[in-house]
Amino acid sequence: MLVSGVPHRTIWLHEEAVRIIDQRRLPWTFELLDLRTVAEVAEAIRDMAVRGAGLIGATAGYGMWLAAREAQTQEELQSFAELLVATRPTAVNLSWAVKRQRAAIAKVGFEQRVETARQEAEAIADEDAAACAAIGRHGLKIIEEIAARKPGQVINILTHCNAGWLAFVDHGSATAPIYAAHAAGIPMHVWVDETRPRNQGARLTAWELAQQGVPHTVIADNTGGHLMQHGLVDLVLTGADRVTRSGDVANKIGTYLKALAAWDNGVPFYVALPSSTFDWTLRDGVSGIPIEQRGGEEVTEMEGMTTEGRVENLRIVAPGSEAANYAFDVTPARLITGLVTEQGTCAAEESAICQLHGQALSL
Amino acid sequence: MLVSGVPHRTIWLHEEAVRIIDQRRLPWTFELLDLRTVAEVAEAIRDMAVRGAGLIGATAGYGMWLAAREAQTQEELQSFAELLVATRPTAVNLSWAVKRQRAAIAKVGFEQRVETARQEAEAIADEDAAACAAIGRHGLKIIEEIAARKPGQVINILTHCNAGWLAFVDHGSATAPIYAAHAAGIPMHVWVDETRPRNQGARLTAWELAQQGVPHTVIADNTGGHLMQHGLVDLVLTGADRVTRSGDVANKIGTYLKALAAWDNGVPFYVALPSSTFDWTLRDGVSGIPIEQRGGEEVTEMEGMTTEGRVENLRIVAPGSEAANYAFDVTPARLITGLVTEQGTCAAEESAICQLHGQALSL
Repeated sequence: MLVSGVPHRTIWLHEEAVRIIDQRRLPWTFELLDLRTVAEVAEAIRDMAVRGAGLIGATAGYGMWLAAREAQTQEELQSFAELLVATRPTAVNLSWAVKRQRAAIAKVGFEQRVETARQEAEAIADEDAAACAAIGRHGLKIIEEIAARKPGQVINILTHCNAGWLAFVDHGSATAPIYAAHAAGIPMHVWVDETRPRNQGARLTAWELAQQGVPHTVIADNTGGHLMQHGLVDLVLTGADRVTRSGDVANKIGTYLKALAAWDNGVPFYVALPSSTFDWTLRDGVSGIPIEQRGGEEVTEMEGMTTEGRVENLRIVAPGSEAANYAFDVTPARLITGLVTEQGTCAAEESAICQLHGQALSL
Repeated sequence: MLVSGVPHRTIWLHEEAVRIIDQRRLPWTFELLDLRTVAEVAEAIRDMAVRGAGLIGATAGYGMWLAAREAQTQEELQSFAELLVATRPTAVNLSWAVKRQRAAIAKVGFEQRVETARQEAEAIADEDAAACAAIGRHGLKIIEEIAARKPGQVINILTHCNAGWLAFVDHGSATAPIYAAHAAGIPMHVWVDETRPRNQGARLTAWELAQQGVPHTVIADNTGGHLMQHGLVDLVLTGADRVTRSGDVANKIGTYLKALAAWDNGVPFYVALPSSTFDWTLRDGVSGIPIEQRGGEEVTEMEGMTTEGRVENLRIVAPGSEAANYAFDVTPARLITGLVTEQGTCAAEESAICQLHGQALSL
C-alpha cells in the first residue's frame, strides 16, 4: 500500500538484508530498519518492530533465509529455528513459517539451503499478500451491495484495532475490502475505534487510511453503539486472531461489544481473515480459546508526542490504582453476519465454514 | 467521604469563603481552592474545577450567597445570577439552584438577603448529600441480595465514568450503594471503566475508591463484555445525566455497550440517580435526548503525569487524523434492570417510575 504516495509492502529484500517498517515508531515517524542477522530478526519480532499474524509469519520466513546463510551446520540451523519460534510463542504463523522453511530446506539438502530458503521466504510473503488481495475482492462485493442500496451516498464502515496492511505483508484483512472499494471509486468513510489499551486504531489504522487517502474519523471505543443507534454505521468490519470451526471469533478486546451493538441495531457485522486463522480443533470459542492477559502498564501508561515532537510516556490512571489488561475477547458466531476469507464469503456457521474451506464436518 | 482518612464534602464554607476541591488537579494532587467572589465561582464552574450535576448545583447555590454579599442593588444581584447561569448553560441543576436562591431572597427582602442565601446554600448542599445517602441505603439492598446468594464471596461491581461523591456534595449516586455496602462489611471489588475520552473512571472513580479503601481495578472500556461472559461481574451500576419518564437513560458515552453486554449475559444492570435527573417531558430517549458533541482534542490528546511528576499533554492519535467526540449515549429502558433514586428502587418502566415519584401517568 502507499506511504507518502509510494507503494510499499511491510517487509521486503533490500541489498542482502531484510528491510522492514519499524512499527514501534509509527505513527510519529516512518523509519525503515534493515535486519542482517537471525538475532536482529528475533529482536524485531520480540520487541514488536513487526506485529500482526501475517507479518510475523513472513518475517520468520525471511529470518530462516538469514539463518540458512549464517548456519554452518544442521545443528546451528536447528538452533536458529528454535530461537525464532521462541520470540512470540503464541503466534501460530511464526512456527508455521519456520516449519515450512525447514521442510523446504530438508527437501533440497544443506548445500542449496540459502537459495531455497530465499525463494521460500518470498513465496510465503507473496502468498500472504495474495490471500489479503483475495479477501479484498470478496469483501468488495459486500460493500458494493450496500452502495447499490444507497447510490451516491457515503458508506460508513466501523473497524476495531488494526487488521490493516501493517499487520500483513500487504492489503490487510479487514482493510482489504475498504481499500478495494476505495480504489473502485465507492465513496467511503471509516470510523476508527481508538482500540484501548494499545491504541492500534488511533495509531496504525488511522495512519494507514490517511496514507491511502481514505476519509476516516477516530472515535473512543465507547462510541460505536451511539453511532449505530443513529444510522451512522452501514457495516462493521474487523479482523480476527483465531476463529473456531463454528465461527466464534477471538479478536482484540472490545470486538464483542461492537458485535452486540451491531446485532441490536441490525447493522451487518463481518469478520475478514486468511483461512490460516481457523482453529479446526475448536468449536466453542468462549470456553475454548484462552485469553492472554498482558501487563497492566499498557492501561495505566500512555505513549504520545509532545507539541515539541518528543515521544513521551505518561501515567494516566490515579496513582496507586492498578489495572487489568485482557487482550482479546470472543464474539459468539450468533452475532456475526459473515466471514470473509481468501476462499470467499460464508455464514459464521460450521457447515458453511467447513464447506467453503474443504474441511470435514466432524471434529 | 474520606480523603487521606479525613471526612470531606466536595464543597463547604470556610472562613467566609466557599472552599472546593480543585478537581482539575485530581488525581495528581489534592488541592483546595477558596472562592471569595461570584466571578471566582463562575470561573470554577466554567473551567470545571467543580463538575457533576449535584456539585454544580451546590456550587451555584453558594455562588448566590457570594452574589448576595457583593450586590449593592437588585439589578446587580440579577446580573450575578445571569453570570452564574451562563457558565454551563446545559447544566439543569445550575439554573435550578440559582432560581431557588432568587425565590428565597425575594421572600425575605433585600435587607436579609445575605443570611438567607447562606442558609439556602447550606440547605441545597445538605439535601444533595441526603439524597445520595438515601440512594446508598436503597442500593445497598440490591448488593445485600447478591451477597446472600454467594455468601463469603467477593461481589464484583462494574461501573462506568464517575458518578461518585466528587460529582455531588457527598456519597455520589452510583458509588453510594458501593460505599454503603463497604461500610456494612460486604466484601467487594469494583471494575472501574477507564471511560475514554475524558478518563473520569481512571482519574476520579479510581481515586475515590482508593481513598475509601474499596478494592478496585481499572480496565479499558473494551473489557466489560469479556468479564461478563466469564462470570466476573455480579452487578453493573452507573449514574445518569438525564432519564426519560419511560426509563431511557442518557449517560456517559459507552454506557449502552455495557448494558448490551449485561443483558446478553444475564448480569443485573442498575442506574442510580437523584430524582431531579428525570426529564418528565420525554418518553423516547434515543430520539428525544440531544447528545452533546465536544471537541475532538479530548480524543486526540491525553493528559498524564511524567515519571518526574510533571503533568503533561500528549498527542495520541496519528498526526493529521481527526476525531469525533460524542459525550453521551442513550441506553434503552429494555436493557435496564432497575433505577435507584432517593425515593427507592423501581423498574425502568413508565408506570413504576411515575408511581414511585408521584408523577401523573400521562404526559
